[in-house]
Amino acid sequence: MNMDTLIELLNGVSNGDIQVEKAADSLKHLSYEDIDFAHIDHHRSLRKGFPEVIFGESKTTDQIGGILEKMTRQENTVLVTRVDPPKAGIICNAYPEAVYHEDARIIVWQKQPAPVTGKGTILVISAGTSDIPIARESILTAEAMGNRVETVFDIGVAGIHRLMGHRELIESASVLIVVAGMEGALPSVVAGLTASPVIAVPTSIGYGVSLGGLTALFGMLSSCSSNVAVVNIDNGFGAGYMASAINHI
Amino acid sequence: MNMDTLIELLNGVSNGDIQVEKAADSLKHLSYEDIDFAHIDHHRSLRKGFPEVIFGESKTTDQIGGILEKMTRQENTVLVTRVDPPKAGIICNAYPEAVYHEDARIIVWQKQPAPVTGKGTILVISAGTSDIPIARESILTAEAMGNRVETVFDIGVAGIHRLMGHRELIESASVLIVVAGMEGALPSVVAGLTASPVIAVPTSIGYGVSLGGLTALFGMLSSCSSNVAVVNIDNGFGAGYMASAINHI
Amino acid sequence: MNMDTLIELLNGVSNGDIQVEKAADSLKHLSYEDIDFAHIDHHRSLRKGFPEVIFGESKTTDQIGGILEKMTRQENTVLVTRVDPPKAGIICNAYPEAVYHEDARIIVWQKQPAPVTGKGTILVISAGTSDIPIARESILTAEAMGNRVETVFDIGVAGIHRLMGHRELIESASVLIVVAGMEGALPSVVAGLTASPVIAVPTSIGYGVSLGGLTALFGMLSSCSSNVAVVNIDNGFGAGYMASAINHI
Amino acid sequence: MNMDTLIELLNGVSNGDIQVEKAADSLKHLSYEDIDFAHIDHHRSLRKGFPEVIFGESKTTDQIGGILEKMTRQENTVLVTRVDPPKAGIICNAYPEAVYHEDARIIVWQKQPAPVTGKGTILVISAGTSDIPIARESILTAEAMGNRVETVFDIGVAGIHRLMGHRELIESASVLIVVAGMEGALPSVVAGLTASPVIAVPTSIGYGVSLGGLTALFGMLSSCSSNVAVVNIDNGFGAGYMASAINHI
Amino acid sequence: MNMDTLIELLNGVSNGDIQVEKAADSLKHLSYEDIDFAHIDHHRSLRKGFPEVIFGESKTTDQIGGILEKMTRQENTVLVTRVDPPKAGIICNAYPEAVYHEDARIIVWQKQPAPVTGKGTILVISAGTSDIPIARESILTAEAMGNRVETVFDIGVAGIHRLMGHRELIESASVLIVVAGMEGALPSVVAGLTASPVIAVPTSIGYGVSLGGLTALFGMLSSCSSNVAVVNIDNGFGAGYMASAINHI
Amino acid sequence: MNMDTLIELLNGVSNGDIQVEKAADSLKHLSYEDIDFAHIDHHRSLRKGFPEVIFGESKTTDQIGGILEKMTRQENTVLVTRVDPPKAGIICNAYPEAVYHEDARIIVWQKQPAPVTGKGTILVISAGTSDIPIARESILTAEAMGNRVETVFDIGVAGIHRLMGHRELIESASVLIVVAGMEGALPSVVAGLTASPVIAVPTSIGYGVSLGGLTALFGMLSSCSSNVAVVNIDNGFGAGYMASAINHI
Amino acid sequence: MNMDTLIELLNGVSNGDIQVEKAADSLKHLSYEDIDFAHIDHHRSLRKGFPEVIFGESKTTDQIGGILEKMTRQENTVLVTRVDPPKAGIICNAYPEAVYHEDARIIVWQKQPAPVTGKGTILVISAGTSDIPIARESILTAEAMGNRVETVFDIGVAGIHRLMGHRELIESASVLIVVAGMEGALPSVVAGLTASPVIAVPTSIGYGVSLGGLTALFGMLSSCSSNVAVVNIDNGFGAGYMASAINHI
Amino acid sequence: MNMDTLIELLNGVSNGDIQVEKAADSLKHLSYEDIDFAHIDHHRSLRKGFPEVIFGESKTTDQIGGILEKMTRQENTVLVTRVDPPKAGIICNAYPEAVYHEDARIIVWQKQPAPVTGKGTILVISAGTSDIPIARESILTAEAMGNRVETVFDIGVAGIHRLMGHRELIESASVLIVVAGMEGALPSVVAGLTASPVIAVPTSIGYGVSLGGLTALFGMLSSCSSNVAVVNIDNGFGAGYMASAINHI
Repeated sequence: MNMDTLIELLNGVSNGDIQVEKAADSLKHLSYEDIDFAHIDHHRSLRKGFPEVIFGESKTTDQIGGILEKMTRQENTVLVTRVDPPKAGIICNAYPEAVYHEDARIIVWQKQPAPVTGKGTILVISAGTSDIPIARESILTAEAMGNRVETVFDIGVAGIHRLMGHRELIESASVLIVVAGMEGALPSVVAGLTASPVIAVPTSIGYGVSLGGLTALFGMLSSCSSNVAVVNIDNGFGAGYMASAINHI
Repeated sequence: MNMDTLIELLNGVSNGDIQVEKAADSLKHLSYEDIDFAHIDHHRSLRKGFPEVIFGESKTTDQIGGILEKMTRQENTVLVTRVDPPKAGIICNAYPEAVYHEDARIIVWQKQPAPVTGKGTILVISAGTSDIPIARESILTAEAMGNRVETVFDIGVAGIHRLMGHRELIESASVLIVVAGMEGALPSVVAGLTASPVIAVPTSIGYGVSLGGLTALFGMLSSCSSNVAVVNIDNGFGAGYMASAINHI
Repeated sequence: MNMDTLIELLNGVSNGDIQVEKAADSLKHLSYEDIDFAHIDHHRSLRKGFPEVIFGESKTTDQIGGILEKMTRQENTVLVTRVDPPKAGIICNAYPEAVYHEDARIIVWQKQPAPVTGKGTILVISAGTSDIPIARESILTAEAMGNRVETVFDIGVAGIHRLMGHRELIESASVLIVVAGMEGALPSVVAGLTASPVIAVPTSIGYGVSLGGLTALFGMLSSCSSNVAVVNIDNGFGAGYMASAINHI
Repeated sequence: MNMDTLIELLNGVSNGDIQVEKAADSLKHLSYEDIDFAHIDHHRSLRKGFPEVIFGESKTTDQIGGILEKMTRQENTVLVTRVDPPKAGIICNAYPEAVYHEDARIIVWQKQPAPVTGKGTILVISAGTSDIPIARESILTAEAMGNRVETVFDIGVAGIHRLMGHRELIESASVLIVVAGMEGALPSVVAGLTASPVIAVPTSIGYGVSLGGLTALFGMLSSCSSNVAVVNIDNGFGAGYMASAINHI
Repeated sequence: MNMDTLIELLNGVSNGDIQVEKAADSLKHLSYEDIDFAHIDHHRSLRKGFPEVIFGESKTTDQIGGILEKMTRQENTVLVTRVDPPKAGIICNAYPEAVYHEDARIIVWQKQPAPVTGKGTILVISAGTSDIPIARESILTAEAMGNRVETVFDIGVAGIHRLMGHRELIESASVLIVVAGMEGALPSVVAGLTASPVIAVPTSIGYGVSLGGLTALFGMLSSCSSNVAVVNIDNGFGAGYMASAINHI
Repeated sequence: MNMDTLIELLNGVSNGDIQVEKAADSLKHLSYEDIDFAHIDHHRSLRKGFPEVIFGESKTTDQIGGILEKMTRQENTVLVTRVDPPKAGIICNAYPEAVYHEDARIIVWQKQPAPVTGKGTILVISAGTSDIPIARESILTAEAMGNRVETVFDIGVAGIHRLMGHRELIESASVLIVVAGMEGALPSVVAGLTASPVIAVPTSIGYGVSLGGLTALFGMLSSCSSNVAVVNIDNGFGAGYMASAINHI
Repeated sequence: MNMDTLIELLNGVSNGDIQVEKAADSLKHLSYEDIDFAHIDHHRSLRKGFPEVIFGESKTTDQIGGILEKMTRQENTVLVTRVDPPKAGIICNAYPEAVYHEDARIIVWQKQPAPVTGKGTILVISAGTSDIPIARESILTAEAMGNRVETVFDIGVAGIHRLMGHRELIESASVLIVVAGMEGALPSVVAGLTASPVIAVPTSIGYGVSLGGLTALFGMLSSCSSNVAVVNIDNGFGAGYMASAINHI
Repeated sequence: MNMDTLIELLNGVSNGDIQVEKAADSLKHLSYEDIDFAHIDHHRSLRKGFPEVIFGESKTTDQIGGILEKMTRQENTVLVTRVDPPKAGIICNAYPEAVYHEDARIIVWQKQPAPVTGKGTILVISAGTSDIPIARESILTAEAMGNRVETVFDIGVAGIHRLMGHRELIESASVLIVVAGMEGALPSVVAGLTASPVIAVPTSIGYGVSLGGLTALFGMLSSCSSNVAVVNIDNGFGAGYMASAINHI
C-alpha cells in the first residue's frame, strides 16, 4: 500500500464511496501482518516509498509463496532476490506476472510497469564480463523502482582507454554504480572523472587473495576518491536500491 | 580554479581586460602542477566541483605547506584532514584564514564562506558521545562544500525511545549520515525510518571484538535496510563529501 | 539416572525391596561407561540435572546408536543435535519414541514428556524468517528441559514498529533468546527494553561480509546493552540449554 | 530515578505534599535529557532496574563530569567504567562520594550502599593472577547492583587439583563468572561441575596466538559444556551486569 | 633402503657375495630418483630412519602408483596418507600387501611388521568420539614406525572425572598425543598431570567459531602447560611421526 | 593485431596494394570492440606485445566463444585460462586449432607456433608433485609468449640434497619460477643460489593452517632472499607472463 | 618440593630426626597455597619434576615477590619469564641469588646449579641475529632444567651453505630447537637432516605480512618435514621446557 | 669479495705477487665468518653479485657495528636498512663513508660509487606524497646496485590525467617500480600501459580497512594486469633489489 492508494481509500471513506467497516478492514493490516513464519511490513511502502523486498536465498518456496500471497494484494511491485532456478520455476508458475531473470537471480513481479520518477540517469558500469550478473541485479532493481538506467560493461583498468572512450556518458550521469571484482580499482578511477555520487559494488569474482570479494571491498573503502560509498559483496540489489534513493531525493 | 573563475578569465581575455600572455600563464598549470613531492590536481575543481583535499596524516608540515601555497592561489576553500595539533599550529600561523577544529582534526581554509548550494538538509547522527569527533569531521566537510547540516548526538539503539523522539527530523532530511562504533546497529534502524539515502560511518570506538571498527563496518554492510551505503572506518570526511555529492545531484 | 531415580533406588535398598547385589550392579556404571569409541558420562544427570547431549554432526549412525542404547536405559530424555535426515531415519526406526524435527535437525527421545520446572517463561525471538531453524533448536531444547516457551518470528530492526508491537511480551519474559544473522543488531534493541537476561544467538544467514555469522557474533559481543551474553554461531541448542539453566536457578 | 522514587513522587502529588508544577518539572526529563554531547537515558532505571552506565574510555573528563552532574541528581548508584587514573583523580575530586578502584579502572558513586536483592551467590573465578583486574570489574559491578559475591583466584587448568579443592563453592553458587585468558579453557571445566549458568569472560592476557583475547573468546564459545554464554574480551563489567540480571529473575 | 640393508649390501661386496656391478647399480639411486613428476628421496631412510611418506591428497592414482613402485623395491614400510576410498581400492588391488584403514584414510604397506624399537609407550587420547579418525592416523603411524601404543577415547573436559579415571595410564606413558577439536582444552589438562612431553593435535571438528580447527590450534599453542607442542590441524600422521621421533631419542 | 601486421597494413596502403576503405575498416576496431558483454582490447597487442588473455573461470561458453571469434581474426596466439573440461570440449570443437591442456586447465590457440624471442632460459621449479598443474600453467604461458623453458619437479626443502643436485641448472637460468604450497619455503632457498630474478608462486596445496595458500604466500613475501617477487595463489599464468616480460626487457 | 626433599623428610620422620608436628606443618601446603591473588601449586615439582614457572608479563612486582617468597622456601630453582628491567631490578635486589638475563627477559633463581640429568644434547639454532633473544630464553630454561645445550646462531636459508657447515652438530643432537622469524623456513630444512625431534619456535621478527609471527608459525605448522612440532610465537621458554621433557623421557 | 677481487687475488698468487699463506688467509673466511651473534655470508657477492644487506630494525647498534666491521673489509658497497636516526648517528660517526638517508631509513656505505651496469632505466612511481619514503628506499637500493633510476611522485588514480601526462616515460622504462598505499590500484593501471615488468610495492599508508597495507597488497596480487609481481608491505628495498636483478639479466 503506497501513499496514493492510502489517500484514495480515505477519500472514498470521506465521500461515502467506501464503507467504514471495509476501510477499517483494509487498514487493519497496515502496520504489519503476522503469518507465523514472517511479519510482513505493509507499512514500508508508505514509510519508504517501496515495499519490503524478499531475500530468497535461505527461504523455502512455501515461505516465499506465503509472503508473496499477502504482498501482491497490496503492492504494485514486489522483488524476490537471490532465487535459484528451481525455486523460481515453482513461483513463476503460481504468479504469471512474475518474471525471472536467471543471470541476476531476481524475480520481478509487477501489476504494471513502474513509471520513471527518478531525476536523472543511473549509469551502471561493470569492470569485467564476469561481473555482469551482479550489475544486472542493480539494473533490474533500479528500473523496478522507477529510474532510467544506462550501462557499460567490461571496461577494467588494465586498458584505461576503454574507460576514457565512455567519458561523456560518465560525466552526464546523476548517480553511478560501479561493479568490480579482483582488485576493485575501477570505482576510484570513475569517481575521479565525475562530481556525482558513485556506489561501488565489490564482487566475489577472483581467486586466491581476492578472498571472496573482501579485497575488492577493502580496496573500494580505501578509495582515494571521496565521492564513493560501498555496499556488501555481490549486493547488486542494494546498490540499485541506494542509487534509486539518491535519484529520488 | 572553478568554473566561475575560469569563465571570468576567458571573458576578460575576450573583452580585452586581460592580456593573452597573462591568461596563458594562469592556464598553464590548469591540468596539474608538479612540485617535486606532489602533483597538485588543479583541474579537479572544474571536473568535480571541489578542489583536492589534503590528507594530512602522513605528510610533513613542509609538504602540507608547499601544497597549500599552490592551492590557496587558485581555490576558495581548501581542507586538510587528519592533522594533529602541533602540525596545525604551524600551518595556522602561516595561513591566518585557516581554522583548526581540534576534535575533528581538520583545517578549513576559506577565502569566503561557502554559499549553501545543496538541495536539502544533511542530518548527521552519532550513536554515542565517543563518536562525536568523527561526526564533526562530516559536518565541517559538508558545510565547507555548501550544505545545510543538522545534528543529533548520542542516540544509540540500547534506548530506542531516544531515537524515536527525533523521528520527524529523520523523516525530513534529504541525506543522512549515521556515525556509530561498537556493533554499528544504528544505521539499519535509522534507514528503516526514511526513504532518503543513509551514509553509514563505522568508528573505531570499542574494544575486544570491535576490532578497531571492523565489526561496526561489517555490520553496516550487512544491514537489513537497503538505502544504506558505507565508507571506511572513522572516515567522517568521506561521508560528508559523499553526502554533499548526493545533495548536489 | 537423575536424583529421583537414585534416591528411589537407595530407598529400595534401605527397606529391603531391592537386593544389595542388584543395586550395586545398577550403580556400577554410575560414573561413566566406556564403550570403546565413547565414554558415556552417566553421572551428568546427577551433577547437572540433565544428561549428556549427543552432538550428531560428525558421528556415524552406528556411534549414535551405540550411545543411545546405553543412555536410553538410564535417562528419561535424550537429545541428539545436528542430525541430517538420512541418519535420523535410521535412528528413529530403531527408537520409536524418538521424534525427529527436520528444520531444527534435532532428535528428541523421551520416555514421558518433561514436566515444566522452570520459574518463568523463555521468549524466543528471531530476526528473520531464515533464522527460524536455529530458533526452533532453542525452543525444542528448552521445552525438553522443562521450560514454558513463547515465540515471535521475523521482527528485524529495519521495521522497528514490528518489534514495538510485541513490547509487553518482551517485558514479561524471564529469559530471552534472540536469534539473528546479518548485522545481528536485534539483541541490543531487545535487551534495551527489558531487565531480564538475553541470550544472543548469531546465525550464519547472510553473504559477503556476514562471514558465515562472525559479523553477527562480533556485533552481539560489542552490544551497547549489558544484559546480553552470547553463544556460538548457529548454536540454538546451547542457547536453549543456557536459558534453561538460568530459568532454574 | 527508579520505581520507588517515582511512586514516592506520585504519592506526594496524590496526597498534596508535592505541588503539581514541581512534580511536572521533575518528570519532564524522565525520558531522556539532551545535554548537547549526550542524551542521558533517565528512563533506564525504570525500564531496566539500573541506570545507564558511563563508558569512560573515549570520553573527555568534561563529558563524564557533565553526564555525572545530571545522573547523580536522580540515581542512587552510578558507575563509570574504563577510567584511567588521571581522569579518575579529577572526577573523584569533584564528587566526594565517588570511589575509584584503580585495578578495575572503575568509579563507583553511591548515595548509599546497594541492599542485597539478588537471590543467590555469584561466584567469580579467575584462571590466573593476571586476570584479577577484569574479575574485580565483575565483582564491583555485581555488588553495586545488589548481589552477594564470592571469589576464587588463580586456579587454572594446568593444576586441576586446585580447582577440585573449591568444588563445594562451585556447586553452591547460583551464577558463576569465570575469567580466563590464554587458551580460555577454565569455563568448560567449571561448567562441567555445576548445573548453574556460567558467564565466561575472555581476557587479553597472553601473547602471540592469544591474539589479544580472541583465542580465549573463541575457545569459550566452542565450549563442550552447554551452560556457558560469553561476553566481549576484558568485559568484566558486562559479565557482572549479566550475572546480576540472572540473579534477579 | 635403511642402514641395515646398506651394511648388508656392503658386507656382501666385501666378502664377494655381491658383484661390484650389481652393488653399484643398487647404490646408483641412493640419493634420489627422478621419475619425471617426482624426485623420490631414497636417502631418507638412511638419514632419518624412516622412508619418505606419500601425501596422497592431491596426487593422482597414477602418481601414487608410480612412486610406490619405486619405493617398495627398497623399503620395508611405506605409508600413504589422506587417500580416499576410490583411490585406495585401485592401489590396494595393485599392491596386495597394502592395507587401507578407511577411518584414518591411510594405506600401510609393509614387507613384514615393524619390530618395537621405541623406548616407552605412546598414549593416544581423543577428546571426543568425532576426533577418533585423526587419533587413528596417529596410532597407525606410530605403530608402523615401531612403537607400542595405548589409547583412551572420548574423555573431554566437560566431565573431568572421566579423565581422572585414567590417571595412572597418563602418568606411565613416555609420550602422549592428545587429539581435540572445538576449544582444544584437553592437552593443557593432560599435560598438567605428567612430566612427559605431550603432542597436541587440533582437529577441524566443530562449527562457527571453531573456524575449521584454528580455535583449537590457537588454544593449544596458548596452553598454560609448558610440556606441550603442537602440529597442524587434523595432522594425526605428523603427531604419530613426532611422537615416534621422541620415543627413539 | 601486433606491430608487424600494423606496419604491413600501412605499407600496403602506401604502395597501393590495399584500398584505403578496406584499411580504414581494419583499423576501425583498433582501439577496442564492444560486443555487448565485453570490450575487447584489440590495442593490447600493440601496447604490450601480447593480446588480452581470457579469464575463463566465471564466463559462460557463449561469452568465451564470442570473444574468441573476434580475437582469432586479429591475433596469432590466444590463451584461455581456468577452463574446466566440459567448457573446453565445446570450445575446442568450434576452434580446431585450439589445444586444451587439462592438468593446467588452459586452452592455447595459435595460428602458428610462437618463435623464441626471449633472451635466456626460464626455469620452472615445483616443490611437490601436487604443485605440477600450476607449474604447467606457467610453462605453457611462457612458451606461448616465445620463451625457452626448462623444468625440475618435486624438489622440496625437506630433502635439500635433491635441490643441490640441480644447482648448475639454477645458476644458468635467466629467470626462475618457483611453485610451492604448504610452507612455501623453496623460493627463499633457490633465490639464495642465484643472482637472477625469482618469481614465486604460492599454491593452495596443503590443509589446516595452509589456509588455501595464504601461508605459502605470506612466507614468500617475507622471504629473507631479496631477488624474489610474488604473484597470487595458484596464478601460474601470471608467473609465466611476468617471467616472459622480464625475459624480453 | 621435589621427590628427593619429600623422601628425606619422610625418612627423618621415620627415624625420629624430625618431629611429626613439624613434618605435618611442612606437608600442609603440599597441594597448593592460597595467598589471595595466587594459588601456588607446590605439588607441581612432585608431579612434573619442575616447579611452577612465574609468567611475569602482566603481574605487579608485589605479586611476583609474593609468589617468590613462598616458592623459594620449597624449591631449588625458580624461573620468572618476560620480566622487564625495572621490575627485575626490584626483584633481584630482594633475592640476591636471582640472576636477570636482560636479552632473554628471564630471572633464574637457584639455590645451587641444576645437575645435568638430560640424556643427550639439546641444540638451539637461530635463523637470524634478531632471533637470538628468544633462543636465549630457550637455552636458559633448558639449562636450568638440567640439560646440556649447544648453540648455532644466524644460519638462515638464504645462504644454505652456512647451515651445511654445521651438519655434524645437527646430526648428533638429541633434541633440536629452531628459532626463526619472517618466513620461518629453517625448521623444515633442519628437520630434513636429522631423525631427532625438532621444536620450532616462530618469532615476531619481520614486518608487513610477517603479521607479528603468524606467518612463521603457520609455515612451521605446514612443514613438509614430519619430525617437527611447534610452540607459540616468541615462546622460547616453552620450547626449552618441552625439549627438556623430551630429553628426560 | 666479488668476482673481480677474487680473480685479482688468484692472479697475484699465480704470478708470485701474493704469498700463498696470505692468500689462504684471505680465502679462509670466504664461505662465511662466525662472529658469535652472526654468520656473515662473504660468499654472497660471488654467488649473487651483491653482498648481504643488513636488516637493521631489530639489531642493536653493537651488532650492526660488528657486522659492518667485517663486511667493509671485503666489499665495495654495504647497505643497512630500517635504521632509526639515533642508531644511524652512532654508526655514521664510526664509519665516515656511511651516508644516512633519514626519509628512507637507509645507510649506504660505499668505497666508491657503483658504476651503472644495468641495461635500461628503472622508473620508480609513487601514488601519493606519503608513499615517497618507501619509493626512496627503492631508488637508493637500485642506484647502489648500479642502475639508472628515474622518478615520478604523486600520480594516484583519482586524477588519471596526471598519470597520462607521464606516458612516454612509462613506455620507455625497462623495469618499473610502483609504490602505492590505500587501495593500491596504481600498478594495474601503469602495467596496462607497458610491456615491461612492474614490481608493485604496497605501503602501510591509510587507515581503517587499509589494514596496515594488506588491502593494497591483496589488490596488487589480484591485479587484472599480468606483468606485475609484488613484494612485502613497505619493502622498498626488496623492490629495488628485484628490479636491479631484472635489469641485469
